[in-house]
Amino acid sequence: MSAQVQALYDFTGEPGTTEMSITCGEILTLLNTEIGEGWWEGRNAKGETGLFPAAYVRKLTPEESSQTKAAPPAPRYDQAADDWGDSQFSAGDNNFQRGASHEDGWDDDWDDDTYSEIGPSQQQHKPPSYTPQTPLTPLPGMPINDYNHHIDDNASNFGSSVGTVRKNKFAPSSKISGESYLLATLNVEVPDSDKVYIIQDEEGYVWSPLSQPYTVTVASPKKESKFKGIKSFIAYQLTPSFNNIQVSRRYKHFDWLHERLQEKFTLIPIPPLPDKQISGRYDEQLIERRRVQLQEFVDWMCKHPVLSKSEVWQHFLTCTDEKRWKAGKRQAERDNLLGLNYCVSLIVPEKALLQSQVDHITEQCHIFINSMDASVKAVSNMCVLQTKRFQGPYKSDCQKIGEAFYSLGNSLGLDEGSIVSKSKLTSAITMTGGIYIEIGRMYDEQPKYDWEPLGDKFHLYKGIVGSFPDVLANHKGAVQKKRECERLTAEHKMEVAQLNEVLRRTDVISYALLAEINHFKSERTVDLKATMQKFLRQQITFYKKIVDKLETTLRYYDE
Amino acid sequence: MSAQVQALYDFTGEPGTTEMSITCGEILTLLNTEIGEGWWEGRNAKGETGLFPAAYVRKLTPEESSQTKAAPPAPRYDQAADDWGDSQFSAGDNNFQRGASHEDGWDDDWDDDTYSEIGPSQQQHKPPSYTPQTPLTPLPGMPINDYNHHIDDNASNFGSSVGTVRKNKFAPSSKISGESYLLATLNVEVPDSDKVYIIQDEEGYVWSPLSQPYTVTVASPKKESKFKGIKSFIAYQLTPSFNNIQVSRRYKHFDWLHERLQEKFTLIPIPPLPDKQISGRYDEQLIERRRVQLQEFVDWMCKHPVLSKSEVWQHFLTCTDEKRWKAGKRQAERDNLLGLNYCVSLIVPEKALLQSQVDHITEQCHIFINSMDASVKAVSNMCVLQTKRFQGPYKSDCQKIGEAFYSLGNSLGLDEGSIVSKSKLTSAITMTGGIYIEIGRMYDEQPKYDWEPLGDKFHLYKGIVGSFPDVLANHKGAVQKKRECERLTAEHKMEVAQLNEVLRRTDVISYALLAEINHFKSERTVDLKATMQKFLRQQITFYKKIVDKLETTLRYYDE
Repeated sequence: MSAQVQALYDFTGEPGTTEMSITCGEILTLLNTEIGEGWWEGRNAKGETGLFPAAYVRKLTPEESSQTKAAPPAPRYDQAADDWGDSQFSAGDNNFQRGASHEDGWDDDWDDDTYSEIGPSQQQHKPPSYTPQTPLTPLPGMPINDYNHHIDDNASNFGSSVGTVRKNKFAPSSKISGESYLLATLNVEVPDSDKVYIIQDEEGYVWSPLSQPYTVTVASPKKESKFKGIKSFIAYQLTPSFNNIQVSRRYKHFDWLHERLQEKFTLIPIPPLPDKQISGRYDEQLIERRRVQLQEFVDWMCKHPVLSKSEVWQHFLTCTDEKRWKAGKRQAERDNLLGLNYCVSLIVPEKALLQSQVDHITEQCHIFINSMDASVKAVSNMCVLQTKRFQGPYKSDCQKIGEAFYSLGNSLGLDEGSIVSKSKLTSAITMTGGIYIEIGRMYDEQPKYDWEPLGDKFHLYKGIVGSFPDVLANHKGAVQKKRECERLTAEHKMEVAQLNEVLRRTDVISYALLAEINHFKSERTVDLKATMQKFLRQQITFYKKIVDKLETTLRYYDE
Repeated sequence: MSAQVQALYDFTGEPGTTEMSITCGEILTLLNTEIGEGWWEGRNAKGETGLFPAAYVRKLTPEESSQTKAAPPAPRYDQAADDWGDSQFSAGDNNFQRGASHEDGWDDDWDDDTYSEIGPSQQQHKPPSYTPQTPLTPLPGMPINDYNHHIDDNASNFGSSVGTVRKNKFAPSSKISGESYLLATLNVEVPDSDKVYIIQDEEGYVWSPLSQPYTVTVASPKKESKFKGIKSFIAYQLTPSFNNIQVSRRYKHFDWLHERLQEKFTLIPIPPLPDKQISGRYDEQLIERRRVQLQEFVDWMCKHPVLSKSEVWQHFLTCTDEKRWKAGKRQAERDNLLGLNYCVSLIVPEKALLQSQVDHITEQCHIFINSMDASVKAVSNMCVLQTKRFQGPYKSDCQKIGEAFYSLGNSLGLDEGSIVSKSKLTSAITMTGGIYIEIGRMYDEQPKYDWEPLGDKFHLYKGIVGSFPDVLANHKGAVQKKRECERLTAEHKMEVAQLNEVLRRTDVISYALLAEINHFKSERTVDLKATMQKFLRQQITFYKKIVDKLETTLRYYDE
């Protein structure tokens, strides 16, 4: 019997391609795991076949498979949505995801052996190396059931009130982890070198600026191969300015990094990777677009005071040794300080924040982000559309103009010879045809200089703006938990000292959010200006070139 | 019972309008003759209803109607195609056509009473005022049947060999009339003032140039009304430069003129009138386009050494008196010297032409015209297409760009206040949106300056080039008749003296064709150069304006 998989997320296949849409919870029969680049092929219950991202499904065990035939289990994602605060289960869950995505037909690489050491079945149930001290221990004076009940309520109310919380395509789940930090049950000593400061400047609370800014270039990708050329893949060459040592990274490495960053920094929007695409994936143009989008990702990372210093990122940027890579990879995957727990590393101003002020700012941010989300998507879609227009109808319209004049010139040429001045006109008209055909070619070339770079930039913004609702939701969840604790204290179910610690830590979380909001603001102000200027300059150059071409043509008529 | 009509020509209704396609010979039931502007409404056998040009059909008598229900008669046009050389029948036929088109729902005017004097039924059988001397008299030594037989053969061979012979939309038939001239049976004294000279210059044989060139302006049309405002119509104001006296002419007057010119000058392509259009016919834009196309018609007429001097044209340009108009109109309709008979007015060089040379030139012209026909149509279609593109997708694409940037600016504005430099960026982005919306508006406006004038010019060329095959066919028919006479003479069925006169007159016809070919050549050489230069200058201005707009926008980012 063929293996079966269950969809963990919705995926919308691009129409007109071999991609297939799948719905969370849907059971599919696996047909081919050798597609490559993270794609699998399967058949759904309606008998339709197509490709979907391997990371969007999990393999069912034979037992599960036999059950699902009668009645499919409730969608896995919905189950997970109730797991708020159960970090142990979540962590195991994440590990399972990871394990699954490494068995899933992405061609094996030297870094996959992390899993062969343990074996997938063991790993699936392996407890995370850091166990929160008390997630299953109820707070004093609060019955287990009651407490859990409230948390569940919060989680679901919250989910429905925000509405726009979205999953990142490649993250298993963006639910809050690290509740133990908030409830003041996490007590870890963070070494000074890992501490991150939030300070106040004229713009408000900001991440302490980078003391040693650096850049990283993503160079033209190379096609590499292994197993004597049986498998080939694209490797991007990254060179950080601080050491000038080039490392080679594949898309799957970026993808792995991205997952780690999303797990760890739930209050910081992680810049997006290029979208996975199936069509023409070894097409040079696509590879170059990916490179540009990876460069955007890398640039944003470098400029971020927190992300740019993070251990996993530094490991990704600098590791050139296979052994060390594996070790660093394992270490990153066993990181204790995920989600809100990461806040234990933050040093914030002493001043307590006014909740009403925080509420106001987050409310504003929510409105702003909602509006930006639509605008950024509109610009992004427009870039895609304009690229298609330039390379499609605009180009072909110009070429039709050119062909019409060209054939007019040819027709006139059939009557050459008896009027002396005519030959000049004929050749000028033919020339005019040629020029319009050339302008058509310019339309075809042009998006490379304006619409595509603009689109790549707005791909970045789309990802960042799109992550903000999750960030705001994570913060809001913490604030709601704080209010819960306040209520519990009012009902004498929680001690004041513990509440105070909860309040302090909620403030740390709020400080982090405010710093991130300000970071996004100042970054985009500089970045969007440069982006728009560059775009407009390219547009101007383009239309000037058309003017030049036409003026050249016009001169032929006078000569 | 409703009246029935029979289609005389094919007409292709424009899709998406109320127009209906009709096929030559098709019987339709008449529903409405009050549509105006030369349109009638009818229902075809399939039950479809729609509008078609009244001039394209003829009303059936009740007797005909009752017959046609059982079996429609053979298409009238096909019958007419065999009438070659039967000038008496053709003339009657033309009169019938004319009578029909004046009863046909074009709103009555003061000039329509020409027909009310006689009444349509009388008029239909009224012999033309000039009766050719011998059309029914066989040439000496040639039996009637035999002669007719040969003529028929020629006519049909000829029709199939040319293949591209086309009907002018508004001309009843462009078949050769005036055979009596060729067969040397027409002997009319033409007054010196009416004589037209063909001379030889460095370009070959040409029409003797105009001694007193003039221009005529077609001024902005006015909406006029009569019958106390019940009927309203558009009148175009024409002012010739030679007298500066303005005359008011409606489209129907142009149409009448055009019919007369086509009857008379079968060796000269008559410039086309604007197409009849039903949609938005009182739309200001359409009226202005018509004016421009009428101006093109008028300009071509004025520049033509023969047409510009013709009596009917002079009458049309100068008559301001109702009585004189009627008289002149009747005179034009009774003109003897139609078709080849017009050649009696021509004075050509003494030198006999070499038939092989004439054949070579006409052959070349045929190839050239065939090619030009396709090219000119392609340019013409392109102008229509580009106009639609500019006013449709190009405009709306720009506006989409504008809206995307504009809404991005608005979104950014939601987050105003805390960063000093941001407001500038926001307003610059909003401004950018506004500029692209403005560029969209420019696209909407632009065709008026480039594509539409180019289209109007190529409408003219389409008409002239499209008339050339008929002109060539008329000439070729004469040459074939000449050969026939040569054969008859060889068989001693025609006298040498008569043949010589036929040869001389065939040469006159050939001289006329050569002069016309050269006239077209020299006219278009000057005209196309100016047209292309004007078009390119407008295109350059347009793209420069875009550059200016974008440069203005770019400066906002730096201020």
